Amino acid sequence: MRMVELIEKKRDGGELTTEEIRFIVDGYTDGRIPDYQVSAWAMAVFFRDMTDRERADLTMAMVESGETIDLSDIEGVKVDKHSTGGVGDTTTLVLAPLVAAAGVPVAKMSGRGLGHTGGTIDKLEAIPGFHVELTREEFAARVNESSIAVIGQSGNLTPADKKLYALRDVTATVESIPLIASSIMSKKIAAGADAIVLDVKTGAGAFMKDEQDARRLAAAMVAIGNQVGRKTMAVISDMSQPLGLAIGNALEVREAIDTLRGEGPDDLLELCLALGSQMVYLGGAAGSIEEAEALLKDLLASGKALDKFKEFIANQGGDPSVVDDPDRLPAAPYRIELPARESGFVSGMTADAIGTAAMILGAGRATKESEIDLSVGIVLRKKVGDAVQAGESLATIHAATEQVGDVLERLYAAIDIAPSAQSPVLVRGIVTE
Amino acid sequence: MRMVELIEKKRDGGELTTEEIRFIVDGYTDGRIPDYQVSAWAMAVFFRDMTDRERADLTMAMVESGETIDLSDIEGVKVDKHSTGGVGDTTTLVLAPLVAAAGVPVAKMSGRGLGHTGGTIDKLEAIPGFHVELTREEFAARVNESSIAVIGQSGNLTPADKKLYALRDVTATVESIPLIASSIMSKKIAAGADAIVLDVKTGAGAFMKDEQDARRLAAAMVAIGNQVGRKTMAVISDMSQPLGLAIGNALEVREAIDTLRGEGPDDLLELCLALGSQMVYLGGAAGSIEEAEALLKDLLASGKALDKFKEFIANQGGDPSVVDDPDRLPAAPYRIELPARESGFVSGMTADAIGTAAMILGAGRATKESEIDLSVGIVLRKKVGDAVQAGESLATIHAATEQVGDVLERLYAAIDIAPSAQSPVLVRGIVTE
Repeated sequence: MRMVELIEKKRDGGELTTEEIRFIVDGYTDGRIPDYQVSAWAMAVFFRDMTDRERADLTMAMVESGETIDLSDIEGVKVDKHSTGGVGDTTTLVLAPLVAAAGVPVAKMSGRGLGHTGGTIDKLEAIPGFHVELTREEFAARVNESSIAVIGQSGNLTPADKKLYALRDVTATVESIPLIASSIMSKKIAAGADAIVLDVKTGAGAFMKDEQDARRLAAAMVAIGNQVGRKTMAVISDMSQPLGLAIGNALEVREAIDTLRGEGPDDLLELCLALGSQMVYLGGAAGSIEEAEALLKDLLASGKALDKFKEFIANQGGDPSVVDDPDRLPAAPYRIELPARESGFVSGMTADAIGTAAMILGAGRATKESEIDLSVGIVLRKKVGDAVQAGESLATIHAATEQVGDVLERLYAAIDIAPSAQSPVLVRGIVTE
Repeated sequence: MRMVELIEKKRDGGELTTEEIRFIVDGYTDGRIPDYQVSAWAMAVFFRDMTDRERADLTMAMVESGETIDLSDIEGVKVDKHSTGGVGDTTTLVLAPLVAAAGVPVAKMSGRGLGHTGGTIDKLEAIPGFHVELTREEFAARVNESSIAVIGQSGNLTPADKKLYALRDVTATVESIPLIASSIMSKKIAAGADAIVLDVKTGAGAFMKDEQDARRLAAAMVAIGNQVGRKTMAVISDMSQPLGLAIGNALEVREAIDTLRGEGPDDLLELCLALGSQMVYLGGAAGSIEEAEALLKDLLASGKALDKFKEFIANQGGDPSVVDDPDRLPAAPYRIELPARESGFVSGMTADAIGTAAMILGAGRATKESEIDLSVGIVLRKKVGDAVQAGESLATIHAATEQVGDVLERLYAAIDIAPSAQSPVLVRGIVTE
């Protein structure tokens, strides 16, 4: 088999066989196939696309390019959730205890990563004492006892995907549905997921700006999952503005607690119910999506979800009293309001610009070496569609310093006020098969 | 300027500016831009094409990536001819003295190269004593005195093209009209051509198998030439079977002499007149293509073209008596006939398979290190459309050994005989602007 012939075959619209895809992925992983051939192939894929069969084969070849996590010592259907990334996305902190309260095992391996705020582990570490240094055996035991545990991600998972992603990033081949879909799915499958729920974001603050593209990506991932024996469902959700109100690590923990108590932002609750219903249904704890949603609402109303969060925190060395007294979470020394300069309705809140402002405050990492300040961030006081009077605060900035002029200006530039405006529809679509 | 953004621009159908194309070519030549970005860009060009302006800019950026030959010390319009490559193509050996006899300067820089037979220099070296070791000054003086001289190619011409071609070869991005056209044109322009005549081959033995592609390539190159101030014309010619009858170095010299004497194969003469007319017209020695053709026919009939060949040979140390006595050329010890196995008409002669057979005999180089046997080769006795009786010879094999079973079988496999067949049209098209 010669790589140049496989590039040519794809270039001319052909379908690569399972063996050919395996040859490319294995050869690239071990260095026999050079970058310059893989980048040309990726560009050919960009133009020619891949069939469902090719996408599934690419996914599994990447899964098998490295280590995989075996979760067979954990009982039940392990359902993992993945979001394509956005701003102020507190869903994981709400969903983990909520779904666990329904009896579905939440065996979460998480990372720190780069971004506007820290990763799930960073956020949880805002809780005093909380740690993720569990042995593999402790982790399994915790999930089997309490249905929930979080551990840091380890192991050399999907090295082919890591290498291919880095190459795509510098060769303008990121924006390819089959390559994005197989990249995401391979990571989830390698991490041991039996079933997968996807939150595909769309809008200005999302990777998929265009809703049609988001739908295609969701359909592509669901098709891959179902082909490789991992039941997969997806929600397509709006990310034209940040989700919820809080953007920051401790601030999002507080928002998650509020939401589990039934006092959180409506949009965050709505999305958590949509994603959580799919997770509970796929986890086998309800006979239908509707039944699953009713169960989740019960768990919120009865306080069982909040209790599960306390149990989870205590299990991992954290102080569960933060749930009843969120003021025990790290707090920034300065709170600065952002008064509206005019009256009207909020007509736009550019999500990624607001995320960048939070990162500048210190909430996220620009590089792997950056230190995160868990206390800082932004809490929105208005969202798109809300009426606002001149002088009324649009947002509260939680900062380590009073010198936040740059952040204020960025926020003003990111928030539009108009004579009229409508609230955007949050859940844009559901893909269940 | 960032290469990844230029790849993306081309990928999305944009037109790159002159500066952007220069950035890519210069950056690739000096190693600042890596192979993996250039291969992705080349694949994007494959799918998105280039505008005429982009093609001209790419050509000139490659010309200026290295040294260029200055032929200003040679009087007149220097017209160069380029063929896209075929089998048994003796046109250069005929055209050089023929066009020089018309007073158009033939200042030929030629190479050895790989292929079914040697390059023009190898073929000329079949003439006892002939050499191309001239100084640059001698070369110019010879052309100014006799209108003709050949010298080996030197200098680091179009390094960008060399590097890009090597990359395209292993990334399935060879077959792109704008990349092929700019590659060919850049080499001719860097070698000092004022005007260019192109022989674009089409058919099974050609790089451009499809006639429509050959027309597109010819039009692309003529457009580039005219945009960058080098008048360019093209002939599209059939290469479904070998051109002429001889495939081999000394054998082709003999065929060239026959043709200059008016006794050569009809197809070779026809193509030499088509190409030569364009060369003479562009060289300013005739007021129209038709007038140029009439002049060339006169030069052949009067013996002046043959005399020019003798003068040329003598000028470069060769023995001009080979022209009157071609038996003085190197001859192979064995001549083996290929008797037809059935009667009928020759319906197909796969040009590249016949070329490969000649290479196996030793007529060409498979690698740079291969030694060429100037005496060996194949002389066809029939061409497509000819009637043949069983037992009648289809070709004579000139070999260094009697053990040519493999070559015979290859030739039988390459030559089809059918109950009826037509001779293909040789000149498929002319592009003059």
